[in-house]
Amino acid sequence: MTDLKFATEKIENPRAHWVITLVCDDTPGIVHALTGAVVAAGGNIEELQQFSSTDTGRFFLRTEVSVADGADLQAEVLPVAKRLGAKITVDPAERKLRTLILGSKAAHAVNDLLFRQRSGYLPIEIPRVMANHAVLGDLARFYDVPFEHLPVTGPEEKAAFEQRVREVIAEEQIELVVLARYMQIVSPELCEELAGMAINIHHSFLPGFKGANPYRQAHARGVKLVGATAHFVTTDLDEGPIIEQNVRRVDHTNTVKQLQAMGQDEESRTLTQAVKWFAEHRILLDGHRTIVFR
Amino acid sequence: MTDLKFATEKIENPRAHWVITLVCDDTPGIVHALTGAVVAAGGNIEELQQFSSTDTGRFFLRTEVSVADGADLQAEVLPVAKRLGAKITVDPAERKLRTLILGSKAAHAVNDLLFRQRSGYLPIEIPRVMANHAVLGDLARFYDVPFEHLPVTGPEEKAAFEQRVREVIAEEQIELVVLARYMQIVSPELCEELAGMAINIHHSFLPGFKGANPYRQAHARGVKLVGATAHFVTTDLDEGPIIEQNVRRVDHTNTVKQLQAMGQDEESRTLTQAVKWFAEHRILLDGHRTIVFR
Amino acid sequence: MTDLKFATEKIENPRAHWVITLVCDDTPGIVHALTGAVVAAGGNIEELQQFSSTDTGRFFLRTEVSVADGADLQAEVLPVAKRLGAKITVDPAERKLRTLILGSKAAHAVNDLLFRQRSGYLPIEIPRVMANHAVLGDLARFYDVPFEHLPVTGPEEKAAFEQRVREVIAEEQIELVVLARYMQIVSPELCEELAGMAINIHHSFLPGFKGANPYRQAHARGVKLVGATAHFVTTDLDEGPIIEQNVRRVDHTNTVKQLQAMGQDEESRTLTQAVKWFAEHRILLDGHRTIVFR
Amino acid sequence: MTDLKFATEKIENPRAHWVITLVCDDTPGIVHALTGAVVAAGGNIEELQQFSSTDTGRFFLRTEVSVADGADLQAEVLPVAKRLGAKITVDPAERKLRTLILGSKAAHAVNDLLFRQRSGYLPIEIPRVMANHAVLGDLARFYDVPFEHLPVTGPEEKAAFEQRVREVIAEEQIELVVLARYMQIVSPELCEELAGMAINIHHSFLPGFKGANPYRQAHARGVKLVGATAHFVTTDLDEGPIIEQNVRRVDHTNTVKQLQAMGQDEESRTLTQAVKWFAEHRILLDGHRTIVFR
Repeated sequence: MTDLKFATEKIENPRAHWVITLVCDDTPGIVHALTGAVVAAGGNIEELQQFSSTDTGRFFLRTEVSVADGADLQAEVLPVAKRLGAKITVDPAERKLRTLILGSKAAHAVNDLLFRQRSGYLPIEIPRVMANHAVLGDLARFYDVPFEHLPVTGPEEKAAFEQRVREVIAEEQIELVVLARYMQIVSPELCEELAGMAINIHHSFLPGFKGANPYRQAHARGVKLVGATAHFVTTDLDEGPIIEQNVRRVDHTNTVKQLQAMGQDEESRTLTQAVKWFAEHRILLDGHRTIVFR
Repeated sequence: MTDLKFATEKIENPRAHWVITLVCDDTPGIVHALTGAVVAAGGNIEELQQFSSTDTGRFFLRTEVSVADGADLQAEVLPVAKRLGAKITVDPAERKLRTLILGSKAAHAVNDLLFRQRSGYLPIEIPRVMANHAVLGDLARFYDVPFEHLPVTGPEEKAAFEQRVREVIAEEQIELVVLARYMQIVSPELCEELAGMAINIHHSFLPGFKGANPYRQAHARGVKLVGATAHFVTTDLDEGPIIEQNVRRVDHTNTVKQLQAMGQDEESRTLTQAVKWFAEHRILLDGHRTIVFR
Repeated sequence: MTDLKFATEKIENPRAHWVITLVCDDTPGIVHALTGAVVAAGGNIEELQQFSSTDTGRFFLRTEVSVADGADLQAEVLPVAKRLGAKITVDPAERKLRTLILGSKAAHAVNDLLFRQRSGYLPIEIPRVMANHAVLGDLARFYDVPFEHLPVTGPEEKAAFEQRVREVIAEEQIELVVLARYMQIVSPELCEELAGMAINIHHSFLPGFKGANPYRQAHARGVKLVGATAHFVTTDLDEGPIIEQNVRRVDHTNTVKQLQAMGQDEESRTLTQAVKWFAEHRILLDGHRTIVFR
Repeated sequence: MTDLKFATEKIENPRAHWVITLVCDDTPGIVHALTGAVVAAGGNIEELQQFSSTDTGRFFLRTEVSVADGADLQAEVLPVAKRLGAKITVDPAERKLRTLILGSKAAHAVNDLLFRQRSGYLPIEIPRVMANHAVLGDLARFYDVPFEHLPVTGPEEKAAFEQRVREVIAEEQIELVVLARYMQIVSPELCEELAGMAINIHHSFLPGFKGANPYRQAHARGVKLVGATAHFVTTDLDEGPIIEQNVRRVDHTNTVKQLQAMGQDEESRTLTQAVKWFAEHRILLDGHRTIVFR
């Protein structure tokens, strides 16, 4: 399998690009200062997006810079960031984000992530898929991704699963954890440890439905749209900052099971989109909101 | 103004078409029985849609029939409906539904309804616009629609407004009441009197937000979609059977006011669509759900 | 691999349902006659859609019938169809359509079809994947589908490939041929043999672009939407009756390669949708148009 | 009528904001130089978007700056632009663009523009509506916009109409000409005079249809989407740089007239969107493509 080359046409490989993100309090002169450092490093700005949040008074910037020597770029921009009291990242655009997938039994979202990683659409590496059921093993192995199955039937096994997640994150230098229909409630402790680096997907409706079996409720109410929301994992269950949302039209002929199937489609594509943006450093946090520089 | 002819191209005027809707308990032979009556009346079925609800065991049908003499059609199909214990309507397709609009201050939804009634897109007549503010008067008069302004600042005036609504419904033989951003809570009594004949529009989000100023909440949470839901008015506020829903993509740069403006666009088009389907007898009720034969 | 069970929730398995499609000249009494036959067979109509084409004077019907004995149903409805001069199909709803996939190098559309067949979303069997390159072999084998690779570098090999397609269709009793980015021009002879049973997918734009490298043209013109069209294969290249179309929003930052990647996404989901409707007998032909009873 | 205040909630009135757009050859240091000038003028960058076109080697920038004194801003940035050989605009964000509407008989697009100008959604002034038919006069007068009717039945009258357009542009200092279903072919001379300042709307399909009555062709082919494209007017008829596109789903039950009605809806909203972006200086030209900083 290692020599399988999918013929999906690849996304253009950028030249020697670096991605800088910068977050700090808004004050005049930030762009000028940062772009001065880029010029001093001999860099050229290929793309730049910024946003000033009137809600929080914070300033957000993402830029792609082409430069001969990335070390020069870092040497010039890091002092600027320090002076601004800014949080900064400087990363080669072509570097692939190390991503851990947590699944359960459902294959749709995991399949989409694995296929699109392989085809080159997602700029990530996937060193591990972990799940509380064995069923996704064949799929992971087809894509040459090590699969780890730890059954979870009680609180002790759940704690062990989460402990193993922590170990894999450390061992594999994981930068992003994707809950691809993981179906387990993450403990508050792990939620906090994963703050800003874990993405979850769940179904969404207009209006929202609380409680068990939302598809049944949506069917009973006769909703005309079903959808999905990708969001950061926080201790406030399913209430983290929203990254992306999509909907699909349904009608009265659709059964509860069909609503679920259509909802799953939206889950797959919404989660994959969120992972792509995260891996490209396009998502920044403004309090409880996301800034997404698409 | 009476001779203004908008040059909007009109929807095709159907021949001598009649629309039949029929709702009854599901049992074998319904379509056969009804179509037998149509054949006996010399009619031809131009369009037919049906749905059997596994939720409620009810059967729903809408058909368009071309026939030389509508009286023959009624004479044949009404006994069939009686035998089936069915609720039936038999109506000329070209008959325009008598529609009362209730507004307040916002013009967007009312403007859309009036313009599309005039252009021939909406198969309705509008004998009256009623509002608790005066501001929509000029707009109504431009379209030659009598406008009635009754201020509402307390419970007595509200009761008087609702009483006047009842009178207008009786005087003008109103068949559909449209709450086009009416902004008043309808009393439970009037809700019940208007059951199945009143349509409301309100903004919608994924997830739903409870409480005051939902646009502010949606902004704070960073939603990526805003939308609107048209639904039947019931005593359960904003929880009536859903007729139609639409969404529009938004992002972090949109202010609360912009979210509102975009939400209003969705409100206008969603409400107009719901009114069109209602006027064409395309909406039937299955318990708390709508069957929409689009 | 044979024991892999994806945990994707399955579409509801219908009871003993049969699907009837009927196409004939429009004349009064068709629905009455057909439903009479259903009643006589002890069947119940679960779903019925019909359409009268004013363009061609043809009548189209699809109905789902629950019945104790399918043989009774056939015995009753076939004579009715004969009397009407109608083309009729009577098929168990749960029967899976035998489907041949033709591919080349691109994996996206083939992967989507195989995954959704396995997950139960697509009611088809796939006895064979054939391609003029070897690269899709691993993917097909992962899903336990026999893969046949026949290189095509000249007209003789192309004729041999097409001859082998004919043999596989006969050997495997193929009912649907899906060109999943097959990238070869089908000979006029094979086009005619496959009339009404072969579906192709290709990218689409507003406006359309003729000639080579349409994505490059679309980029140069600055299109804001890219999409895909699934259509029946006809001798008139890419001009067959349209089954389904979808679009996605793009902008000036997207490179030609990115437009291609987004277009491929639309191709996958549009082709899968078209295959699903075909396998459910929802697509009927009205001259050069499709009637799609969704 | 002058005291009519629509209660549509207004888009937030920005503080003392200025919008700068800048287009020049791409070279390192542009953003740094421009933001230096902003800092020198005591300004703060509220929003900044830029794009480097690999197609043409051109650089595009739009920024919103808050500043105490706009004259200071102009004094600082204009020399920078001169040094870069850049095309620059510096304009108060709240200034309303002077817009001339050219119509014919169809009211849908003109009505949408007038209503949204009045409601505050469109940051434009409309000093005049001109048309070759009288029918839109009442609508224009309702919105207090002077209406000029010049019949066009032959080449001389057409030349006179275009000459009058030139005069109105000069008299009223028109900055944007909107062809809202104007239905006349603009002479090559006027096209060139209006280069980059005139927007047209027309219907669009996948695939495109050439020749007369495209809706009839689209119907015959059974398209599943109809849409609209807003583009700059160029001598190459309907082939100008694309600004915005939208589509709507249709099906086999829609008549040619219904396709037209749905297409008109898309025309209205697409044209209004394009006008809004233009008035906000969000559209820049990159050869035959538009850069739209949404």
